[in-house]
Amino acid sequence: MESWIQAIRQKNKRQIARLITRIENQDPDADKWMEAIYPNTGNAYIVGITGSPGAGKSTLLDEAISFLRRQNLTVGVISIDPSSPYTGGAILGDRVRMTRHSLDEGVFIRSMGSRGSLGGISKSAGDAVKILDAAGYDLILLETVGVGQAELDVMHVTDTVCLVLNPTAGDVIQVFKAGIMEIADLFVINKADLPGAGRLESEINDLLDLSKQKAGCWYPPIVRTIATRGEGIEKWWEAIGRHRRHLEENGELKRKRKKQLELETRQIIEEWVRRRLERAWRSPDWKKDLQKLESREISPRKLAEKWIGTLGRGACEETFQTDSFDD
Amino acid sequence: MESWIQAIRQKNKRQIARLITRIENQDPDADKWMEAIYPNTGNAYIVGITGSPGAGKSTLLDEAISFLRRQNLTVGVISIDPSSPYTGGAILGDRVRMTRHSLDEGVFIRSMGSRGSLGGISKSAGDAVKILDAAGYDLILLETVGVGQAELDVMHVTDTVCLVLNPTAGDVIQVFKAGIMEIADLFVINKADLPGAGRLESEINDLLDLSKQKAGCWYPPIVRTIATRGEGIEKWWEAIGRHRRHLEENGELKRKRKKQLELETRQIIEEWVRRRLERAWRSPDWKKDLQKLESREISPRKLAEKWIGTLGRGACEETFQTDSFDD
Repeated sequence: MESWIQAIRQKNKRQIARLITRIENQDPDADKWMEAIYPNTGNAYIVGITGSPGAGKSTLLDEAISFLRRQNLTVGVISIDPSSPYTGGAILGDRVRMTRHSLDEGVFIRSMGSRGSLGGISKSAGDAVKILDAAGYDLILLETVGVGQAELDVMHVTDTVCLVLNPTAGDVIQVFKAGIMEIADLFVINKADLPGAGRLESEINDLLDLSKQKAGCWYPPIVRTIATRGEGIEKWWEAIGRHRRHLEENGELKRKRKKQLELETRQIIEEWVRRRLERAWRSPDWKKDLQKLESREISPRKLAEKWIGTLGRGACEETFQTDSFDD
Repeated sequence: MESWIQAIRQKNKRQIARLITRIENQDPDADKWMEAIYPNTGNAYIVGITGSPGAGKSTLLDEAISFLRRQNLTVGVISIDPSSPYTGGAILGDRVRMTRHSLDEGVFIRSMGSRGSLGGISKSAGDAVKILDAAGYDLILLETVGVGQAELDVMHVTDTVCLVLNPTAGDVIQVFKAGIMEIADLFVINKADLPGAGRLESEINDLLDLSKQKAGCWYPPIVRTIATRGEGIEKWWEAIGRHRRHLEENGELKRKRKKQLELETRQIIEEWVRRRLERAWRSPDWKKDLQKLESREISPRKLAEKWIGTLGRGACEETFQTDSFDD
C-alpha cells in the first residue's frame, strides 16, 4: 500500500487512473485507499466549471490548461457528465483537443460518467478530486456538463464555481431556475465576440442578488472570453485569484472547507444507514418478525424499538472492509 | 391507564377525542397509549374516501353514516384536510350536516388538519384509525380532501379505497396523474343526475388498467350516487362488501394488512433515525469532532464510522418514553 501511495504522490498517472477507476466501480477496498491518502489532501485549490452543453467549456478548459502550465502550475481535470453512462477514463468526443496535454507530466485529465446514481457521481467526483489533491496538483478543475441537481451537488466540493454562458444560448433563465446562479462565484461569457454579449451581461446583473453588492461581500464578476482564440483566459484566472483571496482573507475558505467535510461525513453516515436498513428489510429475521407483527404478538413500535437497537452494532466491520487491495 | 383503555373500549367519546388530540400534538406519551391499545386493533374494516374538494364527499359520508346506522353498524369517521392547519376536533364548515350524528353513541366523527408535516398527518391519521379500531367501531371511514401525495400516504392504512368524482369537475386526468386511479378499489360518480355522468364513466373505464379485467383480479366497479337525495348509498355499500369478500377470499386482506404493519414499522425506524441524526448534528460532541476533521486529525470516513457506532445505543430510552400519562 505504501508504494501505491508513494506512486500517487509522485503523480504516477497510471496509479491515479486505476484508483479513480476503483472509485467509479464502487470497489469496497477503495475506501481504504481514500483513507490512506486523506492526510495528504487539502492543499489544492479546486475550481468548478459548469454551464449548459455547447457553452464552450471544453475549449475554455483546454486553453486554461495551457495558460496555467505557462504559470508553472500543475493541473488536474475531472470532467463529469451525469447524463452519460460513459466511463473508464477515455476522452469524450469534443474533448479530443485536450489530449494534446496528455503527454504533459504536469497535467492529468479524466472523464467520469454516471455509472451509479446521481448521488454516486457526486461522491465519486469528490473522491477523484481528493486523489488529485493528494497527488499534489496545484489546481484541480472540476467540469460538469449540464445544469441540474447532480451538477449542484458536485459543485459542493469546489472552492470557486465558474458558470460559463454564451450570448446565443439564451439559457440564463434556465440556469437561474436550476439554482446555479446562486452558487456561481464568477460568470464567464464565452464566445464573447458573438452578438448579444452585452445583453447577456445585463441579464446576469439583473438576476444577481444586488444585496451582495455591499462592503465585505463577494459580488460575482463577469469575465468575457473567446476560448477558441485563447482570449480572456488571463482575466478569468485573475478573477479566480481575487475570489480566492477574498475567501482566504475573511476566513471563508476555512469555513467552506470545514462545511464540505461535515457534509461529506454526514452523507457517509446517511448512506450507511440507508444500506443497513435496506439489508434489514430483506433479512430472514425481519421476515420472521413480520409474522409476529401480523399475529399482533408484537406492535410496530416494539418491533421498531428492537431493530433500532441493532443499528450501529457491528458497524465498523460491515462498512469498512479491511481486505487487502495491494497490486 | 387501565381505566383509560377501558373507557376507550367502551366508546367513551371524550377519552377517544383526548387521545387523538395527544396524537395530533405529538405528545411523547401518546406512544405508550398506542402501545397499550394495540392488542385491541385489527377488527374494524377501514374504508378510505378520497376525491377533489367539492366532489360531495361530506354529503356522501353523512348519508353513508345514516345508512350504516340503520344496518346496526357502529361508525368512526376521520376527516383529513392536509391543506388546512385547522385541528382540534371541531367540525369543518361544510361538515356541519354531519353533526346531526354527534349525539348518536354509535358514531364518532373527528376532523384532523396538518399541524405537523405531511408525513406527520399520515402517521396521526393512522393512529387515529387505530384508536377507533380499538374502541370497537365496526366500520371506520377515513376521508381526505384533495388528491396529492399526502392523500395517497393516508390511504395506505385503508382496506377499500373509494374515489369520488362528479360529472362537472372534469378532474379525471388530474386524479389519474396523481396516481389515485391506481389505488382506487371503487369509483363513485356522485351528483350522477348532472349531465356528463355517462361520459365520466367511459373516461374512467378508458383509464383503468384493462389487464386487471381477468379472472381472479379485482376490477374496480363504478357506482353512481346522488348523495344529496341519499340515492345509490346502498349500491355503494354493496360494492364495498364485494371488494371485502374478494380481499378475504384470496387472502389479500391478510397480505395487505401485513404490508401496512410492515410499512408502519419501517416508518417508525426511519423517523427515529432521522431524528437521531438531526440531534447528532446539533450536539457539542459533533461540533468538537468537526474541529478534528478540519485539522485532518480524522477523516470523514473514520468520523462517520465513530458516529455510526453510536446509533442504536440507548435507543429504547430515548424513543419510547415511559413517563406517566394518567389522567
